[in-house]
Amino acid sequence: MTLTVGVIGGGQLARMMVPPAVALGIELRVLAETDGSSAAIAASRVGHYTDLDEVLEFARGVDVVTFDHEHVPQHVLAALVAEGVAVHPSPEALAVAQDKLVMRQRLADLGLPVPDWARVTNPSELSRFLDAHEGAAVVKTPTGGYDGKGVRVVRSADEVDDWFATHTALLVEELVDFRRELAQLVARRPSGEIGLWPVVETVQRGGVCAEVIAPAPGAAGRTSDVAADIAVSVAEGLGVTGVLAVELFETSDNRLLINELAMRPHNSGHWSIDGSRTSQFEQHLRAVLDLPLGATGSHREWSVMVNILGGPTDGDMPTRYPLALAEQPMVKMHSYGKDSRPGRKVGHVTAIGNDLDEVVYQARAAAAFFE
Amino acid sequence: MTLTVGVIGGGQLARMMVPPAVALGIELRVLAETDGSSAAIAASRVGHYTDLDEVLEFARGVDVVTFDHEHVPQHVLAALVAEGVAVHPSPEALAVAQDKLVMRQRLADLGLPVPDWARVTNPSELSRFLDAHEGAAVVKTPTGGYDGKGVRVVRSADEVDDWFATHTALLVEELVDFRRELAQLVARRPSGEIGLWPVVETVQRGGVCAEVIAPAPGAAGRTSDVAADIAVSVAEGLGVTGVLAVELFETSDNRLLINELAMRPHNSGHWSIDGSRTSQFEQHLRAVLDLPLGATGSHREWSVMVNILGGPTDGDMPTRYPLALAEQPMVKMHSYGKDSRPGRKVGHVTAIGNDLDEVVYQARAAAAFFE
Repeated sequence: MTLTVGVIGGGQLARMMVPPAVALGIELRVLAETDGSSAAIAASRVGHYTDLDEVLEFARGVDVVTFDHEHVPQHVLAALVAEGVAVHPSPEALAVAQDKLVMRQRLADLGLPVPDWARVTNPSELSRFLDAHEGAAVVKTPTGGYDGKGVRVVRSADEVDDWFATHTALLVEELVDFRRELAQLVARRPSGEIGLWPVVETVQRGGVCAEVIAPAPGAAGRTSDVAADIAVSVAEGLGVTGVLAVELFETSDNRLLINELAMRPHNSGHWSIDGSRTSQFEQHLRAVLDLPLGATGSHREWSVMVNILGGPTDGDMPTRYPLALAEQPMVKMHSYGKDSRPGRKVGHVTAIGNDLDEVVYQARAAAAFFE
Repeated sequence: MTLTVGVIGGGQLARMMVPPAVALGIELRVLAETDGSSAAIAASRVGHYTDLDEVLEFARGVDVVTFDHEHVPQHVLAALVAEGVAVHPSPEALAVAQDKLVMRQRLADLGLPVPDWARVTNPSELSRFLDAHEGAAVVKTPTGGYDGKGVRVVRSADEVDDWFATHTALLVEELVDFRRELAQLVARRPSGEIGLWPVVETVQRGGVCAEVIAPAPGAAGRTSDVAADIAVSVAEGLGVTGVLAVELFETSDNRLLINELAMRPHNSGHWSIDGSRTSQFEQHLRAVLDLPLGATGSHREWSVMVNILGGPTDGDMPTRYPLALAEQPMVKMHSYGKDSRPGRKVGHVTAIGNDLDEVVYQARAAAAFFE
């Protein structure tokens, strides 16, 4: 018996599923959009995720289909299910991740804590929301946003006229007065078993995740418990299978509000590759195959991950290894095998240890070699 | 710049180089002997390691050639070097691992501790050795042995007549009165940097490694120091590059004697995948590329690895995951993707923790699901 998992999308998330698939003896097949993708080593087919015939052909013979991203159209997902293919997370769950307006409504229906929000279809509706929220708000396109794209802080209703021209409706949210951002990662099997990692602190720069500290400092106790409760409620309430990341605001008045959801392994969990007994990538494979989940204890008190972004100069991560590895032998380096472009995530580094200051220093010092 | 490592041989050692290659962004190319090899995911070519043209074609464009096994003939290695290909470990070092008589002579020349030994070419020479060693000895074929094959304990000179008929000379060694077997793993870069893991205890059954305990219980202090000194002397004395395993006897009178050498990642180091900051497979890639070595601290006080051997019944490891993973969520499972045959190594499991009894229990309990 060979267990076979098909991953739609050939980005770094699919790439990072390769090591645990190799370890567990799971055959990983990736549908990549291009040759030379980040997950090329496991790419069994090159084709686009919107091409129904490609996707159906790719899915033939796999035990389960899962995803590197949440963009596969619902009609493609429905066709897979109609063909009897196991799809995790399910099309119903993914529908919530694919549209921020649907997501806000479903989370509100579940009674979960979210920022004040509204669906607005024109500038005057947006104006009313701004008037009710001290003249400032965050506007998001319901679909297509990532890494800060599709998100604007506005103080005047005419600042998103271009979006109103191209979208039926927009999501507007209060500008949350938050102290920091957290993320709670959870894995859930189709049969219901749940696995949790500690809640982490995520530091964003320019709308892109820059650093993750696991666990979030000072979060033990109530904050951790509330974050875990929220993530479990989301996973169970929406029927999410596989790994789910719940991005949270910790407000200045000590509440946790849900910011975003990602129904797949997530940047906030990359630390788990080196810092946890079971990485999010191994756990995702186990979860979507409905296999028992692994233990999620941490190797050390602290894990710190720093993303590596492509810079204006040439040279990928391995170019800098002779210096970086010599100076930081404790730090684990991860290169995504992608061409370097300014602002593009091309890798990450993770340090672990029991002294947070030292761990932060090591991770940042290692990352600095690649910037 | 892409770093490219070519591995000759498609067994589980090549397979286990895939995860660190993916992490570091190293392109791994494997010359596998067959389709569907253990390292199939990275197999860029199928061909035999004795076929000079195949090997030369395979090596084109890689930064360094290294090995899954030590069996590549010297004329093939010499041709690679003549073509300007970097080969690690070098042909000179591999020559020592390829012939046990050469190995014994070189280790003796280096003044390193080895069992009493002799080169014997006929039964009467063997008889004299037996007479001088209380009538018992171990005879080994100089080449072609592994996992207990090519090794016989003899009490009469006629017990290896078949080997005398097919070999010019045999190695005979004293039957060492040993308390236990240890192994010291070391990595060495071409430029000289050395990395060491703790000395481990290896438990053999039927000439095959069954369990490894890292570190070897009670070995802290003098035993560890001596083992490390021996391994470093071997690595430097023979000019070994990459990972080297030195298998040792710990004698009843507290000496360490060298039993075998392996110039590649080794079964005694599989625990390092889950138990060490830097696994032997990552370190081997770093070493053969002459990149700085990684830290080798352990995640927990103890790591215990148990091999999984193919049984008389069908069913590979993943067949048993539903029970095994549920019962042992702390244990890491490794399946080599090989067809199960009686006695064949098809995978391993590793448990780590601070209570040795508990760790041994977990690893054995997990392994039992696959037997």
